[in-house]
Amino acid sequence: MRATVMYGAGDVRIETVPDARLIEPTDALVHVTRAAICGSDLWPYKTMAHSETGRRMGHEFIGVVEAVGADVRTVKSGDLVLAPFLISDGSCVFCREGLTSACLHGGRYGFDGVDGGQGEAVRVPQADGTLVVLPVGKDDALMPSLLALTDVMSTGHHAAVAARVSPGKTAAVVGDGAVGLCGVIAARRLGAQRIILLGRHPARITLAKAFGATDIVSERGDEAIERVRDLTGGFGVHSVLECVGLDQSLLTALSIARPGGAVGRVGVPQSETMPAEQPSFYRNLTIAGGPAPARAYIPELLPDVLNGQIEPGRVFDRVVRLDEVPDGYRAMNDREAIKVLIEF
Amino acid sequence: MRATVMYGAGDVRIETVPDARLIEPTDALVHVTRAAICGSDLWPYKTMAHSETGRRMGHEFIGVVEAVGADVRTVKSGDLVLAPFLISDGSCVFCREGLTSACLHGGRYGFDGVDGGQGEAVRVPQADGTLVVLPVGKDDALMPSLLALTDVMSTGHHAAVAARVSPGKTAAVVGDGAVGLCGVIAARRLGAQRIILLGRHPARITLAKAFGATDIVSERGDEAIERVRDLTGGFGVHSVLECVGLDQSLLTALSIARPGGAVGRVGVPQSETMPAEQPSFYRNLTIAGGPAPARAYIPELLPDVLNGQIEPGRVFDRVVRLDEVPDGYRAMNDREAIKVLIEF
Repeated sequence: MRATVMYGAGDVRIETVPDARLIEPTDALVHVTRAAICGSDLWPYKTMAHSETGRRMGHEFIGVVEAVGADVRTVKSGDLVLAPFLISDGSCVFCREGLTSACLHGGRYGFDGVDGGQGEAVRVPQADGTLVVLPVGKDDALMPSLLALTDVMSTGHHAAVAARVSPGKTAAVVGDGAVGLCGVIAARRLGAQRIILLGRHPARITLAKAFGATDIVSERGDEAIERVRDLTGGFGVHSVLECVGLDQSLLTALSIARPGGAVGRVGVPQSETMPAEQPSFYRNLTIAGGPAPARAYIPELLPDVLNGQIEPGRVFDRVVRLDEVPDGYRAMNDREAIKVLIEF
Repeated sequence: MRATVMYGAGDVRIETVPDARLIEPTDALVHVTRAAICGSDLWPYKTMAHSETGRRMGHEFIGVVEAVGADVRTVKSGDLVLAPFLISDGSCVFCREGLTSACLHGGRYGFDGVDGGQGEAVRVPQADGTLVVLPVGKDDALMPSLLALTDVMSTGHHAAVAARVSPGKTAAVVGDGAVGLCGVIAARRLGAQRIILLGRHPARITLAKAFGATDIVSERGDEAIERVRDLTGGFGVHSVLECVGLDQSLLTALSIARPGGAVGRVGVPQSETMPAEQPSFYRNLTIAGGPAPARAYIPELLPDVLNGQIEPGRVFDRVVRLDEVPDGYRAMNDREAIKVLIEF
């Protein structure tokens, strides 16, 4: 089969790899119909050291089940399934608590002998715990929004939950990438009265406004902080969704939260330490978040996608075929595209 | 009047200072009957640069109201009052939300022309918002426990609330100082099933057990982390109360919280950055806390002190007169005393 392999920074290739196949009795073999390139794929795209063997890429996909292992109960051949970006068994202590991203028997696509999602087929371990059967056809118009549930929409929702967004409160979203834009959807969905997006890119701002952003702050650094404070009576916002992960963006996030406020962080941190320890202490900020338990959130979010109440699929502004995936990485890295959808 | 003045590290003097007197119509003049030395007073005691003018010390006291300004409504001459460690007006947006430590018109004892609590009298600004009238006589046997509400007990409670202690959950307390010991009381009061104290000092361990600690971990650093994980099935605890503020203690706190757990930090941070950014992200930890809104907590905690249900006053293991305060600082700094009470 054909799949995406990264060999180093900027070096993404489509290659023939061994066919995906069932190994464990809890596996499902999924023929991929839609996949995506993730903002987090851009970190290795920018920095990965050269590798002789390469790394299988992709962790957001929808596909049709081709076969299941003997122990699989909840999915069967022919089912259209959505695969959240992490594998989880659905039964361990953390899964039962809703933190599927800490599953004791979890795993990641592209690691430890598991296929990547940006390829023609994937062996999905822990199929019962991981996969969600979709009640639509494989080419339904909702595909982009359903695909967004695998990661960006669930991650934006996690940022909003961690930032304790609630009805009537003010929220700010740091980052105008696909996750930040989904964070706007999530903040609105949870009832935020005012949603300030920190971003500069015109197309992203337009989309953010369509998703419910009430204010846009395009300044940077200290000026952005001043501007958010000006917009909020000098106090800052109740909830900040940090959707970048850089030191500077986290510093901004901590600086625009009002005393007693919360920062929900979902941007993968690129630093070993967190800045502004003392200011965040003196202002009694809550800092929460991490890898989203997407699998646990999907039962709540899926109905809103199916009934058209939220349209996170609008973050996909480019569609490519598998052979064009390397150019899709380039386009996202150059900020030419917000998010790239791969059709098989 | 006589009061405590610090001139630099290790240099605490009892001096004659101008008599406290009413200035604003919202002030109360309080004749101090009991005060305390705080763990946080030891930071300047260890590090303060020499000052020609000195710094007035003390922010935990109980006293009798001698006079009130024209606008004061809720306290009157002769009332015995408890003064939380921060001044708050009780009416601003943050006070109304229960975050009295972020009061827009708040202040600190010993700063900006406000007297310190380790002296014979104090002008208390924002008396209506700040002071709590006590329904007991000034020499009641409950004085030590009531005095603990001004700071250490309220701060231990804040750590437990920020760490989301709840019935049946596991908690760990990092730090066996007076705040940590009160954290044990608070964790038990909020229903923690298992309370692990990290500490080594025999007298403090005895008290921690009396307060409800179920396990003691006296190892340091990585060994302490291993030990807590061993005690908790390898996972760590749901709630960690960080009651020290050093980089190492915060690192320990973050390392012993289980995935999805929370660290409530009340130790004043001595570092500019927070360690373990990535591990705390990947484990979805919540980090919360800061200066306790003691004034907001007292209505909840005071009844439990009055009816004897909690006895935080047991953290006071030395009583001194005002002239002996410098030796009280020395004794606390040498860890000879857990906490020093000053009788006037």
